[in-house]
Amino acid sequence: MSRLDSFIRRLEAQRACLNHAAALIAGLDGAVLELGLGNGRTYDHLRSLFPNREIYVCERQIAAHPDCVPPPERLILGDMRETLPAARARLEGRTALAHLDVGTGDAAANLDAADLEALPLPDGIAPGRYHLYRRI
Amino acid sequence: MSRLDSFIRRLEAQRACLNHAAALIAGLDGAVLELGLGNGRTYDHLRSLFPNREIYVCERQIAAHPDCVPPPERLILGDMRETLPAARARLEGRTALAHLDVGTGDAAANLDAADLEALPLPDGIAPGRYHLYRRI
Repeated sequence: MSRLDSFIRRLEAQRACLNHAAALIAGLDGAVLELGLGNGRTYDHLRSLFPNREIYVCERQIAAHPDCVPPPERLILGDMRETLPAARARLEGRTALAHLDVGTGDAAANLDAADLEALPLPDGIAPGRYHLYRRI
Repeated sequence: MSRLDSFIRRLEAQRACLNHAAALIAGLDGAVLELGLGNGRTYDHLRSLFPNREIYVCERQIAAHPDCVPPPERLILGDMRETLPAARARLEGRTALAHLDVGTGDAAANLDAADLEALPLPDGIAPGRYHLYRRI
């Protein structure tokens, strides 16, 4: 598989997981949290999935397409290891979905926590390519 | 359609067109020319499609993944408006396929020439999303 093939699969997996997550949280009130804005493509997809939810975005420094930058009141600017704890009062208990795409490729260094229950991935997505968790 | 949807479609169109072009030139001797290396994903796909052809790459400055950098004798470094004319002796009459992904998004400013005949795109690719030409 070429890197082009692999990249397309990763993006398709991301989209399938986000669309699946949108269905999972349909009955749940709350905001959406995007951890890492990047070029803003995923944020734009989240906007299309959740037109009626507040979407908060953590980012160190804005490098996104101008059309894909969140309004200032939803932007949490800085190193998320510092800004996220500071945003706790605003977000805790009212976040329906958090999406993280800043993994290291090192599986062991990525997210795993006692209060996260792994959920099955949508059809066609290879195990380990993306991860879905429900907080329990 | 979100920017994520649109990006996935563009990459799928690129791959479909490259795979289709590989079939079109199967009976033709010659090198492959990649105009713009970028992160090297497309170059990696070209390597997988053409393991037995020389692949030349024009790039201003290398920013690709180290695994996706061509050997120095196939790398044409600098502004391609200057380097391509200089590489003419090496490439003219022996290039079976040239791939260009440095368009401006401005259709009028993109490639159109009297000696290029437009070819039909592979099934499922919307007209105008990618362009295939045969030199006549």
